[in-house]
Amino acid sequence: MQAKVTFNGKMPLVGVNDKGHETCFDASMDFSGPAKYASPMDTVLEALGSCSMMDIISILRKMRKEVTRLEAHLDAERSDAHPKVFTSVQVNYRLKSPDCTLSEFEKAAGLSMEKYCSVAAMLKASGCRITWSAELT
Amino acid sequence: MQAKVTFNGKMPLVGVNDKGHETCFDASMDFSGPAKYASPMDTVLEALGSCSMMDIISILRKMRKEVTRLEAHLDAERSDAHPKVFTSVQVNYRLKSPDCTLSEFEKAAGLSMEKYCSVAAMLKASGCRITWSAELT
Repeated sequence: MQAKVTFNGKMPLVGVNDKGHETCFDASMDFSGPAKYASPMDTVLEALGSCSMMDIISILRKMRKEVTRLEAHLDAERSDAHPKVFTSVQVNYRLKSPDCTLSEFEKAAGLSMEKYCSVAAMLKASGCRITWSAELT
Repeated sequence: MQAKVTFNGKMPLVGVNDKGHETCFDASMDFSGPAKYASPMDTVLEALGSCSMMDIISILRKMRKEVTRLEAHLDAERSDAHPKVFTSVQVNYRLKSPDCTLSEFEKAAGLSMEKYCSVAAMLKASGCRITWSAELT
């Protein structure tokens, strides 16, 4: 898997994946004003949510369940000292579905968090404590 | 640090950080055609590049060096089995500057990779081997 990130003298940094899709990364590190895009660590936190949500959607579809809406609400603590790694993350999943029970939803979320989600696996292996909860809305 | 990711029934997923900045995450997981945005793991790889680049830019500016252009070229290997974590990442940094030597550039990149970069620290702690090189362009 390949990617490239470019800084051309002003923010934001622009990432490009191997299919040419762009993602911007920002920070208030120059004099051009406040950040207009998420920071790298914001993006890693959101990648945790989105990686596991793709698992959950895929698992629920295999179970023939309809996913009308799914949200992940993420709350992370970081180390005070450099490097400011994530020390813990809480994820609250909220599903709107006409035919999925809480138990089925929790099974899908658990399979993602324990088996499939690459971002969760890397963060947990790094020493970050990840806890999650699920609710129907 | 807080964030929210939403799936509203179709791709992409939309992440929002605590300042309201949006980042999209995509995958070819439904019938609406190919992905139009980077995947969560693409984005983690690019977050590694951009997090360390922000360190490098900041360090070089403190050294009163001008950064005309900086690129990170990233090449990652992933586990074959689930969870498909990064097992190794190679980063090649390329700097265009009228007044920075290769030695100064390598010092800045080394400080980021060994001390400051939160994403690099988490990936390394997870067991991923990160190697880097630097060149002036």
